[in-house]
Amino acid sequence: MIEDVIIIGSGPAAHTAGIYLGRAKRNPLMFEGFMAGGIAAGGQLTTTDSIENFPGFANGISGGDLMEQMREQSLNNSARILTETVSSVDLSKKPFTLTLESGESAEAKSIIVATGATAKVLDIPGSKEFWQKGISACAVCDGALPIFRNKVIAVVGGGDTAMEEAEFLSKFASEVVLIHRRDKFRASHVLQERIKSNPKIKIMWNSIPVELKGSKFLESAVLQDTVNGEQKSLEVSGLFYAIGHKPNTDFLGGQLKLNEQGFIITEPGSTKTNVEGVFAAGDVQNPHRRQAVIAAGSGCLAALECEEWLSLNSERAW
Amino acid sequence: MIEDVIIIGSGPAAHTAGIYLGRAKRNPLMFEGFMAGGIAAGGQLTTTDSIENFPGFANGISGGDLMEQMREQSLNNSARILTETVSSVDLSKKPFTLTLESGESAEAKSIIVATGATAKVLDIPGSKEFWQKGISACAVCDGALPIFRNKVIAVVGGGDTAMEEAEFLSKFASEVVLIHRRDKFRASHVLQERIKSNPKIKIMWNSIPVELKGSKFLESAVLQDTVNGEQKSLEVSGLFYAIGHKPNTDFLGGQLKLNEQGFIITEPGSTKTNVEGVFAAGDVQNPHRRQAVIAAGSGCLAALECEEWLSLNSERAW
Repeated sequence: MIEDVIIIGSGPAAHTAGIYLGRAKRNPLMFEGFMAGGIAAGGQLTTTDSIENFPGFANGISGGDLMEQMREQSLNNSARILTETVSSVDLSKKPFTLTLESGESAEAKSIIVATGATAKVLDIPGSKEFWQKGISACAVCDGALPIFRNKVIAVVGGGDTAMEEAEFLSKFASEVVLIHRRDKFRASHVLQERIKSNPKIKIMWNSIPVELKGSKFLESAVLQDTVNGEQKSLEVSGLFYAIGHKPNTDFLGGQLKLNEQGFIITEPGSTKTNVEGVFAAGDVQNPHRRQAVIAAGSGCLAALECEEWLSLNSERAW
Repeated sequence: MIEDVIIIGSGPAAHTAGIYLGRAKRNPLMFEGFMAGGIAAGGQLTTTDSIENFPGFANGISGGDLMEQMREQSLNNSARILTETVSSVDLSKKPFTLTLESGESAEAKSIIVATGATAKVLDIPGSKEFWQKGISACAVCDGALPIFRNKVIAVVGGGDTAMEEAEFLSKFASEVVLIHRRDKFRASHVLQERIKSNPKIKIMWNSIPVELKGSKFLESAVLQDTVNGEQKSLEVSGLFYAIGHKPNTDFLGGQLKLNEQGFIITEPGSTKTNVEGVFAAGDVQNPHRRQAVIAAGSGCLAALECEEWLSLNSERAW
């Protein structure tokens, strides 16, 4: 059987596409993955206690609850969801073929890739333990939380994102300590200048965290000097990783155009990829703006563009 | 006092921007309008009984409830909301000046325009009475509702949108009657061909509805022949207007670049307008994709782009 459309992913982009294509009677099939990208089905949000900025929830909602609602909504709109991970695809001919980790395969006229991206974190003691208990990878998402207000917060990184996160967090923190492993930033000049002139931001060059400590929440970081190896302790209530994201695009085997970091390139203002009939939505095609509602909006757009494409190609000999 | 940012509007785009800029400590001021664009604060969604496709609500939510949640959420994130309509703006110098219908004025470093668009409808008897009781202006939003399944549905219009709506509705309806006032469509050729070859779609040329009748829900339409003036009755359970939308951009007085229909033109994949510091989000800058979650996503993007612009211009002599 050739599916009209297969959606790969399980976050806000995937489910919004599922809801719309279900309502459009395309009977969409979703592969939500089984710990794909190292994250449970539902995506990055499932690791978040409280989301206060997804519109529609006056008092916030937990990431798990939000994704449960979306999954249920996909099902209610007649999407079919399988908890399997897609291991590879063949986009060289139509219909497209998808191979699953189980070894089985599936065929589809169109595909929506919404596999997300995973924040890079350091694999050091305490990093997992205090995740979302002081540790985060998104200042815009979590910076305004009460646990960070008027506290010392660390940011790890040296690129544009690290500068932006540090500047953003300086609105809430008593002090932001920007920890960078080298003695200069790779960030753009203008961002560096703003960071250096911000009285609330302190830069620690040649430093890396090697251990994160606390009781219930993060309380301190052990920093190591990358030149002389000396260690010291820094009291922090928060630590934000800004060392990049890894898009979940390995399974594509280079068949879609990717940027240098591996994110899928789509036409500006569209979810169309370089392969006709393949659409990409959410963080996997958006290296810079990693917000759930933006991902959801792009999932909707992908569904609308996919629906149009299927209508246009309805008389093709499949 | 010069505001950091003023948001004009009250729909999903405006409130998502309000939530994000509130959390970014920009103390945003929103003018939600008083019956601006002929619609109550909250925008087009407030006229919708049930929204089943906004992600996060497994069993749907009423338009009024969704917008109440968003408004509350803006306030909870420290946006300030005034129920006043902006009557004109001066974007020729910074800070920008906004004049309200009350005669008062306000100054702002940046502006987010999220004033939406209003579906055009025919001003005929029954049109208001059965709005959302069989009458709609959005097939993607409402086509899947149970009241339209296996029923005769009328679509009014002759452009691309009318063709798309008719085709989409033919999935649910027993028959779609496409009513057009002239004897040819202005829609693109390929769309016309698909409509003409669709066995479930019947075209009624040279016809306009002149009255809509029913008891609790819409039951029939009186159609008039535009050539000979003859009238006849058509039993329909639904009628979808596809005669265009009017963007709420008159108050801009031509100071932002607009397209032919009056929608604001933004950079592709961005909310930036042709005036630096002015951003546009939601339906007012999106003539084709009028979905709440897309509007919300673009409101989030506007907030992020606005925040960046404000940071970059923080040392300007305001």
